[in-house]
Amino acid sequence: MAQVEIITIGDELLIGQIIDTNSAWLAQQLNLAGFAIKQITSVSDNREHILQALELAESRANIIITTGGLGPTADDITKPAFAEYFQSGMRIDEGVLADVTAYLTQKGRQVGENNRLQALVPEKCTVIRNHIGTAPVMWFEKNDKVFISLPGVPFEMKELSSSRVIPKLKERFKTPKIYHKTVMTNGLPESVLADKIKDWADALPEYMKLAYLPSPETVRLRISVSSFEQNIENMVNEQIDKLQPLIGKYIFAYNDEYLQETIGKILSQKNATMATAESCTGGSIAQLITSIAGSSQYYKGSIVAYANETKMALLDVPGEMLEKFGAVSKEVAEAMAKGAIKRLNTDFAVATTGIAGPDGGTPEKPVGTVWIVAASKDKVISRVYTMNIKRDINMRLASSAALQLLRFLILEIE
Amino acid sequence: MAQVEIITIGDELLIGQIIDTNSAWLAQQLNLAGFAIKQITSVSDNREHILQALELAESRANIIITTGGLGPTADDITKPAFAEYFQSGMRIDEGVLADVTAYLTQKGRQVGENNRLQALVPEKCTVIRNHIGTAPVMWFEKNDKVFISLPGVPFEMKELSSSRVIPKLKERFKTPKIYHKTVMTNGLPESVLADKIKDWADALPEYMKLAYLPSPETVRLRISVSSFEQNIENMVNEQIDKLQPLIGKYIFAYNDEYLQETIGKILSQKNATMATAESCTGGSIAQLITSIAGSSQYYKGSIVAYANETKMALLDVPGEMLEKFGAVSKEVAEAMAKGAIKRLNTDFAVATTGIAGPDGGTPEKPVGTVWIVAASKDKVISRVYTMNIKRDINMRLASSAALQLLRFLILEIE
Repeated sequence: MAQVEIITIGDELLIGQIIDTNSAWLAQQLNLAGFAIKQITSVSDNREHILQALELAESRANIIITTGGLGPTADDITKPAFAEYFQSGMRIDEGVLADVTAYLTQKGRQVGENNRLQALVPEKCTVIRNHIGTAPVMWFEKNDKVFISLPGVPFEMKELSSSRVIPKLKERFKTPKIYHKTVMTNGLPESVLADKIKDWADALPEYMKLAYLPSPETVRLRISVSSFEQNIENMVNEQIDKLQPLIGKYIFAYNDEYLQETIGKILSQKNATMATAESCTGGSIAQLITSIAGSSQYYKGSIVAYANETKMALLDVPGEMLEKFGAVSKEVAEAMAKGAIKRLNTDFAVATTGIAGPDGGTPEKPVGTVWIVAASKDKVISRVYTMNIKRDINMRLASSAALQLLRFLILEIE
Repeated sequence: MAQVEIITIGDELLIGQIIDTNSAWLAQQLNLAGFAIKQITSVSDNREHILQALELAESRANIIITTGGLGPTADDITKPAFAEYFQSGMRIDEGVLADVTAYLTQKGRQVGENNRLQALVPEKCTVIRNHIGTAPVMWFEKNDKVFISLPGVPFEMKELSSSRVIPKLKERFKTPKIYHKTVMTNGLPESVLADKIKDWADALPEYMKLAYLPSPETVRLRISVSSFEQNIENMVNEQIDKLQPLIGKYIFAYNDEYLQETIGKILSQKNATMATAESCTGGSIAQLITSIAGSSQYYKGSIVAYANETKMALLDVPGEMLEKFGAVSKEVAEAMAKGAIKRLNTDFAVATTGIAGPDGGTPEKPVGTVWIVAASKDKVISRVYTMNIKRDINMRLASSAALQLLRFLILEIE
């Protein structure tokens, strides 16, 4: 497999002002395209240091990709460093000059001398024009090795890599076919999930790779195949079918669809509506649901009832019930869900009430105790969870658990 | 200034599965402690490659810090690589063994042979024990250079660096005194802010560095001084005082205090309460406010009124008003804020109504149009904003704008 090295250039990376997300993105995309990454290096805007990094990378890899250091100011010196490395003179590229002029004109800005200099490129490079910014991609070849300079602005780098650079690299180097599919699960901690699917994972063919990608809410299982064979999609799907009897109910979607999108699709298909009644999640569920464009079709709103007074006034939770069972109780959670269905006039509702922390716990109801209810007009499911981590994580976990519980209720999953 | 190189070790970094946030965090903290970062390198769990990276780093820097590759499994080979680099045998460290045993016992897990191997360290290193995990810090010295191996788990790495490693490095190397203060602003775009403070920024003494750290909601201005002089705190504070007449009203706090915390402090001081009535922000403001521990003292809740029906039923917005002016209007936003004060029985409320996008815009009210209102029982401030970016960013911008407007109302800032 062709080996790639990525060199990110810029002082801002070395003082920790900016986290280098470019190289992680590039590494991921290049992997998916069938290339192996040998090393990632971040260096400052320093001539000698850039030259040394290029030389060392050339000694290890077939393809060397740099990002950054292409701005119009004097501290950006990637271009002269490349010219020196390839012992090349400079020329004005008329295509790049046209792009820079068009870009600045469109933004209502003047073309200054600094901008004209952006059209100056080493004579020995092939230019790939940048249709969404000012710095072009420069492509050099030397002894069967390829050197590519990309702009450092993330959205330009990503767009140019996806549409121009990676396709061109795939033509230039022989790469295997890659297929991957992600299984989205909610409700099983990573270690429990791993136990449940251990035999399945052990029996996967050797050319199939399994990665656990956990977040507080969701454990994503990514199955990848890299092969020169055809028909690899079917090979992956056959294995995924075998997961159904093991963890089927926890799988809500595939390929980076999140629970709030799944819930939206389910409700749209049924032409149904929902509401939320949130205490300890404090609006987090509402925020997740409304993050999806078009959610106003099925989502009528939330009553974030942080105070007991609000639970009584807006969700019709009886004062005696709060008195008798406390705000964090099954009874109150169920009353909140029913109150939301009635007050917001919906088919479904979820409700949460709990102790998000860090204070407010008691021996009986420690921090992290959360009652979650999903309800329709004639059915209720209630669960209590103990998620004693950090306040923000507790809130995220409770929000996703509520959405999963609603999915179980609507789809009648036991 | 002492030069540092950071080497992050792990295959997962090179396939883009994990974004290397460790090195950015370390670079930032080391900079603030008075060290300069020369290079950041990510390499795979490969013996030769690690040895080469150590050798190259030694040729350029005074301090070489590695993270990762210290797990109990066979693919983690940082430890033998260090032993080989320093031509050192291995020994069992009893302190580390005690830590590993205590850590696993506390988690209810058995100590296996793999775990015992975690107590094996090169003879030539000094061990810094890890009180929150299993992999110890290893500290090597060679020809006036220091080599440090840190665990890769971010929270362990951060805790051990802050409490043990950076203090020890500051004793070992002469470092300048560093002071920095961050000015938190909301309400001025970065370019407008930069214009307003241009003369001030140009007049800053040369030894004072200004960094703009923009996010959608907040532009943070970080002023740093690195000096062997005393009294540098006063030097920074004197400059910050001069910002007041220029951008005073937009400054809500210092040193990474966020607007939701500022609002919480203001309300607590006044012993006052607030509520929110959210349409286009969909619970985001509630989520921000309740992210602060103790917010139940001043926050009673939110009515997330996504549907017009909900605005009428729960916030008493008259149907005729919605008919006449539309949901996205000054009139409706003000009625929502008043409805929230009444229904949730609070001193203050904020309300939002707008078109978050990507669809739903009209020529008169394009996507991104948002009415925001802050109200008390006898005062109302209303503003219309046009923030046409992406749905999620629109919602974040509108939420922070609402909190800033509430701050203006409560503090009577014109």
